[in-house]
Amino acid sequence: MSFAATVLTLYPEMFPGPLGYSLAGKALERGDWSLEAVQIRDFATDKHRNVDDTPAGGGAGMVLKADVLGAAIASVADQRPILAMTPRGTPIAQARVRDVAAGPGAVILCGRFEGYDERIFEAFPQVEQVSLSDVVLSGGEPAAIAILDACIRLLPGVMGAASSGIEESFEQGLLEYPQYTRPQTWEGRTIPEVLRSGDHAKIAAWRKARSEDDTRLRRPDLWERYSDARDRPASGARQTNEGPGS
Amino acid sequence: MSFAATVLTLYPEMFPGPLGYSLAGKALERGDWSLEAVQIRDFATDKHRNVDDTPAGGGAGMVLKADVLGAAIASVADQRPILAMTPRGTPIAQARVRDVAAGPGAVILCGRFEGYDERIFEAFPQVEQVSLSDVVLSGGEPAAIAILDACIRLLPGVMGAASSGIEESFEQGLLEYPQYTRPQTWEGRTIPEVLRSGDHAKIAAWRKARSEDDTRLRRPDLWERYSDARDRPASGARQTNEGPGS
Repeated sequence: MSFAATVLTLYPEMFPGPLGYSLAGKALERGDWSLEAVQIRDFATDKHRNVDDTPAGGGAGMVLKADVLGAAIASVADQRPILAMTPRGTPIAQARVRDVAAGPGAVILCGRFEGYDERIFEAFPQVEQVSLSDVVLSGGEPAAIAILDACIRLLPGVMGAASSGIEESFEQGLLEYPQYTRPQTWEGRTIPEVLRSGDHAKIAAWRKARSEDDTRLRRPDLWERYSDARDRPASGARQTNEGPGS
Repeated sequence: MSFAATVLTLYPEMFPGPLGYSLAGKALERGDWSLEAVQIRDFATDKHRNVDDTPAGGGAGMVLKADVLGAAIASVADQRPILAMTPRGTPIAQARVRDVAAGPGAVILCGRFEGYDERIFEAFPQVEQVSLSDVVLSGGEPAAIAILDACIRLLPGVMGAASSGIEESFEQGLLEYPQYTRPQTWEGRTIPEVLRSGDHAKIAAWRKARSEDDTRLRRPDLWERYSDARDRPASGARQTNEGPGS
């Protein structure tokens, strides 16, 4: 069974875009997932095919019309989760990406302009309002591409077996340790001695210390959760935080 | 003066991708910004053109080689900021996006595999390690596209004047209020009475209350900062948090 992605957008020509290359592109060719980009404008009913109108109560910008968007959603809604990309959404976590990737697929709704007519979320209470990042985008499409990429890499057979275990290190809620590879010396800089020692216990201890240092410095939010959990031993609840993505 | 974007990647064919359409695509055609996608592999010197090698000290995956990446960075480095996309990075904030967009351009480094040889960051201390989101991607390319999109929409003339004021609402550190537009009644659901009242003070109060409610519910992190700042009056420091993007 393949993962079925449907994107509702005013720019279907943006897809598959980067998802047509590399891991995701090969998986698309193999049929591990499928992609349908639906033009929201096709559901406009007036002669100008308008998809947006001015905000009720005043204000700048334009709002995506509930009638047009509602018809578009109704045309594709099935048992798959529906994610609406919006700065008003809950930040999407890697745990949710894992859940979505384990299911039959996803419908992703890409906002533009000043957002969606709110009645959409009353009429379709199953729609999850999610945000990818605190960076303000011109529309939901780049965010949809990132979320689909994150789902696709988790599909069975997409990543090599070697890579699939790597996020284990995030399950402790820390950033990954710094990495080094050959050449041994580059522009006078050598790989840290300990990594060349062959002493697995010492290597593991060094990596953990570096993970902790970098997390404390760069991600005080993760560090707070990590140190809280560490100082509260044997609570029975396993830490499942997977940490940040690129 | 146009904004010059250079992306270092193993998949230059992913660019401009979605950035070739809509606002960013039109701005690219007009010459408001330029895009150069540089193939990292062109800087490999061995006969197999290897860009990666196994991690020093053991572990799964492959690490991008410092010598190859270093040569690639050196070939494009100038006065522009250099952002390396990595899950180990500091989350990029909209304030940083604004700074970058106001400058001459950006170099964006897209990681793949298990990341970069850490010596790169010692040799090029000006490289900022940033992450877009806590979602784990297959590589930095979708994140680079999102960050460039966020920069480009802020370039002079790219958005209409009408839209540029909209983020003001985020400057208080709240999510935006819900929006509505015509039709007045859709599937039995009407636009809230207050938005049709024409009473600007009442509309503003309703919107602020809804912004506060939604922020408290969906973004406890923003809410905490907002309510701290609100309860600490006249500190002299203006709140400049711009809030989340899509």
